[in-house]
Amino acid sequence: MKIGVLGTGTVGKAISAKLVDLGHDVMMGTRDVAKTLAQKEPDRFGNPPFQAWREQRPALKLGTFAEAAVHGELLFNCTSGVGSLQALELAGEANLNDKVLVDISNPLDFSQGMPPSLFVSNTDSLGEQIQRAFPRVRVVKTLNTVTASLMVDPGQLAGGEHDILLSGNDAEAKMQVTAILKDWFGWKNVIDLGDISTARGAEMYLLLWLQLRSALGTPIINFKFVR
Amino acid sequence: MKIGVLGTGTVGKAISAKLVDLGHDVMMGTRDVAKTLAQKEPDRFGNPPFQAWREQRPALKLGTFAEAAVHGELLFNCTSGVGSLQALELAGEANLNDKVLVDISNPLDFSQGMPPSLFVSNTDSLGEQIQRAFPRVRVVKTLNTVTASLMVDPGQLAGGEHDILLSGNDAEAKMQVTAILKDWFGWKNVIDLGDISTARGAEMYLLLWLQLRSALGTPIINFKFVR
Repeated sequence: MKIGVLGTGTVGKAISAKLVDLGHDVMMGTRDVAKTLAQKEPDRFGNPPFQAWREQRPALKLGTFAEAAVHGELLFNCTSGVGSLQALELAGEANLNDKVLVDISNPLDFSQGMPPSLFVSNTDSLGEQIQRAFPRVRVVKTLNTVTASLMVDPGQLAGGEHDILLSGNDAEAKMQVTAILKDWFGWKNVIDLGDISTARGAEMYLLLWLQLRSALGTPIINFKFVR
Repeated sequence: MKIGVLGTGTVGKAISAKLVDLGHDVMMGTRDVAKTLAQKEPDRFGNPPFQAWREQRPALKLGTFAEAAVHGELLFNCTSGVGSLQALELAGEANLNDKVLVDISNPLDFSQGMPPSLFVSNTDSLGEQIQRAFPRVRVVKTLNTVTASLMVDPGQLAGGEHDILLSGNDAEAKMQVTAILKDWFGWKNVIDLGDISTARGAEMYLLLWLQLRSALGTPIINFKFVR
């Protein structure tokens, strides 16, 4: 399948690598292709520069946000939350319309230092902002509640016996994304929270997730809802 | 032990009944004793009027917020979040000072209908507001992430194999509350998130909890953090 992945950070790399490994035709989108390719230093987490990472995956394409959006029949938003709306503007509404957009972004605001706060929450969410800004895009919020490596390999933790959330207005899009989560990424338990307004709960959980990462000493954590 | 429980709603009743069953000397505190005793109708959830409920537990005392605060060597805040600061003012700072206050409140705002939003969140929390308003009170936030019946009977769900959170500035108070959660209420797994500012995450989780209650069709739910 032709897939566009917007964002070349940790999340974009994890999603793209998995999709390429599954045999899909993936183009990653970035704001400035030359700048992304020119990175010489590891990022602040110690990850290798983009081009060094991409050399391991020659099939992976790189383009602008707009080129990646045109390329993909299915799109993933893996940009940082603070830049998501602008990245999608650059991708171009006409290139996004009627496509399923898997929105993994979190509205984290690090401008006041640690711990971050959320720049939208409580009575609105980034998922809703994206859906309102692009009413014909079929936005499905998911995967934002786990660290990047878990998104595409849930089985590394407790045999995959934990849960992932889903929010969106388009029932058919949610069915498609549920199949992707289960069949491609290996998730056993997908909880459909409801329409895109339920992204509020999924995004507001991020502050608790950050606290748990500190308290438990690892990012490889997730919730299992017992009932 | 002499214990004061502020609030006569579903949470106050669940906590008080459990403490009385354990043999403690419990006084519940309310804004207006005569009004609480005069209730004739079941509440909006179908629970019996206060006095009909209390007749099953003759050892249980009822007083004003101030009388309950004086009575208790240990205090529970089970008032609705929107009224918590005022209830604690009525209890009287001198009657609260130096005591451990187990804060179960949630800053839910139902004034705009369902779903509720939070009247404080993101960069502050109700737990922090209470701690700031009463700097000598040893506030420990906990139990606000589960429905009332689970607070004192976690074993009814999955054999108790799920988690409860804890936030507070006073290490000794948190040790005492951890022992209460484990030895009195039956919690197996208590996660200490850190200082009282981590109440932000625990309170912001409430919107997700409300969504999960709808999506899963039961309030008898809780998280188990796998790691």
